[in-house]
Amino acid sequence: MPEINDSNSPINLWWQRDDLKFHDNRLQLGQCDLTTLAEKVGTPAYVIRAPRVIQKLDALHRAFDQVGLDHRIFYAIKANRSPKLLTYLASQGKCGADVCSPSELVHALSCGFAEQNISFTGTSLSKRDIETLSKFDRLRLNLDSLSSLERLGQACPGREVGIRVNPDIGIGYSDNDLLQYSGVEATKFGIYLDRIPEALAIAEKYQLKIVRVHFHAGCGYLDRELDQLADVLNASRRFTELLPDLQELNIGGGLGVPHTKEDSPLNLQRWADVLAGTYADSGLNIAVEPGDFLIKDAGVLLTEVTYTEQRKDVQFLGLNAGFNLAMEPAFYGLPCEPVPTQLSTAEINHYTVVGNVNEALDKWAVNHPMPKPEEGDIVALINAGGYAASMRSEHCLRGDVQEVLLLD
Amino acid sequence: MPEINDSNSPINLWWQRDDLKFHDNRLQLGQCDLTTLAEKVGTPAYVIRAPRVIQKLDALHRAFDQVGLDHRIFYAIKANRSPKLLTYLASQGKCGADVCSPSELVHALSCGFAEQNISFTGTSLSKRDIETLSKFDRLRLNLDSLSSLERLGQACPGREVGIRVNPDIGIGYSDNDLLQYSGVEATKFGIYLDRIPEALAIAEKYQLKIVRVHFHAGCGYLDRELDQLADVLNASRRFTELLPDLQELNIGGGLGVPHTKEDSPLNLQRWADVLAGTYADSGLNIAVEPGDFLIKDAGVLLTEVTYTEQRKDVQFLGLNAGFNLAMEPAFYGLPCEPVPTQLSTAEINHYTVVGNVNEALDKWAVNHPMPKPEEGDIVALINAGGYAASMRSEHCLRGDVQEVLLLD
Ligand SMILES: Cc1ncc(COP(=O)(O)O)c(C=O)c1O
Ligand SMILES: Cc1ncc(COP(=O)(O)O)c(C=O)c1O
Repeated sequence: MPEINDSNSPINLWWQRDDLKFHDNRLQLGQCDLTTLAEKVGTPAYVIRAPRVIQKLDALHRAFDQVGLDHRIFYAIKANRSPKLLTYLASQGKCGADVCSPSELVHALSCGFAEQNISFTGTSLSKRDIETLSKFDRLRLNLDSLSSLERLGQACPGREVGIRVNPDIGIGYSDNDLLQYSGVEATKFGIYLDRIPEALAIAEKYQLKIVRVHFHAGCGYLDRELDQLADVLNASRRFTELLPDLQELNIGGGLGVPHTKEDSPLNLQRWADVLAGTYADSGLNIAVEPGDFLIKDAGVLLTEVTYTEQRKDVQFLGLNAGFNLAMEPAFYGLPCEPVPTQLSTAEINHYTVVGNVNEALDKWAVNHPMPKPEEGDIVALINAGGYAASMRSEHCLRGDVQEVLLLD
Repeated sequence: MPEINDSNSPINLWWQRDDLKFHDNRLQLGQCDLTTLAEKVGTPAYVIRAPRVIQKLDALHRAFDQVGLDHRIFYAIKANRSPKLLTYLASQGKCGADVCSPSELVHALSCGFAEQNISFTGTSLSKRDIETLSKFDRLRLNLDSLSSLERLGQACPGREVGIRVNPDIGIGYSDNDLLQYSGVEATKFGIYLDRIPEALAIAEKYQLKIVRVHFHAGCGYLDRELDQLADVLNASRRFTELLPDLQELNIGGGLGVPHTKEDSPLNLQRWADVLAGTYADSGLNIAVEPGDFLIKDAGVLLTEVTYTEQRKDVQFLGLNAGFNLAMEPAFYGLPCEPVPTQLSTAEINHYTVVGNVNEALDKWAVNHPMPKPEEGDIVALINAGGYAASMRSEHCLRGDVQEVLLLD
């Protein structure tokens, strides 16, 4: 019997790794057989393997340690705010939480993160937002505009704060325009260098102590973007040098995971070398707040095949889950590749894989090689751990979905 | 005092109409002063003026009547499924409901629509979906694939059904690629002409009576696209001629509203003439299932100014609402133009208007002329009645929003 897993197969299992792979032709996530899980809990279902997140946290800590950088990791909960996941992470004590709205702050607290382990970096904060935030005196608060700095100063003079700055250089996965955070045109995030003197004046007026500088310059970066990261870090020095009370540099999130067979995982050793290249011996603590990097490839979305049918010269394969359950493929060009949870050696066809929402862009993959499925077969959409559940909508009332946290 | 409302003002009030206009420099929707409403209910808030929807329904009925076409209107609830709105529409009796999932079906019923006034056209239906649907024997069910027709035949032989066909010609607002429903490449929707003989064979096998043909060929069309509509209608004849039991042609939705100052409202008389051009004297009932056309310009999203600040050479104006509350501007290139609810004659600036979600694409408008606002001023995002609330997400936990239905 020919092995579908071999290199001659048109099916490319580039994403296989120790804890996500076929065993006897059945897809396993950690110890969990995904076909059996789908039969038990039903589909669609988000499934997250928590130990994968811990493994990533450990790898990050190790990379920092190897270059001798004092550091802190805050998980960006906007990537996946599942209460189960958050409580698990809070209990493990390997990371704090990065939040971006007062409601996210309260949510992180309610899941068990201690206030002093929560970092806040929001945008377009309203007066009410600032009022709420000012009650949290141990919160690690970073302000992204002069006006919010001013308002916070009025509300809590004398406080320690951070400022989000805009290094005016972008970085990101394959230069994806939609994900442009800084660089070229002015973006809405952070204080530009020319206005730092004003930030200092506001701080002085209210005796605010600026102890942190924060930037977040892009998203999804891998090894090929590390030179850009070096440039951003370099640019950030022009800010850190101006701030006498600085204790911490927060380099935001943006660390990526492979999305296609052309991508390789981020080399954390090289990444840490780049950080150390600019900030070793700076005396600064380096904070990082990854979302996707920690959670995206720890999660899959389990779905069921509804039908296959030829239309013109295209074979369509329908699933019982639409783009409202994972927006990145349709809107950001970041694929969640469909993978059958059981490999047969049957006929391989090329399918356009579609969802059950009445919109033309509700498509998971085009011309994608898969074994000919039966109705009811389970298909896992990989890389659905980040920004899928968190951006989920009830569009067409197709929002019903289970959520399972696996602890192995 | 110079009138901002005059033609020399850099602010273009192209969207003003009888029931959405400035009165004494305060924006009114129907009888409602939007500034006062925002002060009372808080922001962000979706506001829908129900009589506007009724006025559109009346205009549609009139247009059909003038060309002597028997017809039915089904409101596509996917555009806005507010229970308040649905119950109001069900009580007025001027339209049925178009639904696209079993949950939407149950929702429409629960809001007061009678089963026989509900039309169902879904996609990628699962076995469970078909099981649910087969219990509704008075539902006006249209099936969009041979496989679902086969399954329905098995579940309810002898039943009257409709089929969704694919006329293989697209139509749509400014050739927006994201909204491509049929034409050129095969899409996931409907049965193509070459497979109609198979559909007839399935119908015969299960004694299904195909009484309706349905197509939906695009979205957002205005007068300039009416020639395309004529082509689609023409192409649809090749289907209707093959189906001996036909009673109704459902031409889907897709009727548009103006999004920019370059657009003019759809001329319903011309539109009805196009329909009559192909289907007068056909003996067929013509059904239409508009979503956006009925609801989009009946709704605004009220927001509050959080700050203004210059970054590089750009003036930013922040709002307390992000793209998670209205996805069309960021993802479909369909603007929700920001309009201050109080016009002052103060300084006019050009602003990049942004929201409070930590994503670079969270932008409402670029270089948009507006009177210099104060923090706390109310800004209405117009055209937020359709596909805003229905695609709303809790992204960044910035999903809190009020919803107000105005009856005047
Ligand atoms: C300030 C900030 N930090 C962290 C993140 C997390 O980004 P990622 O998931 O790409 O690591 C984001 C994402 O938008 C952000 O805006
Ligand atoms: C089958 C069907 N009918 C009606 C509609 C409503 O479309 P619109 O809001 O553009 O009128 C849609 C939209 O996706 C649809 O798919």
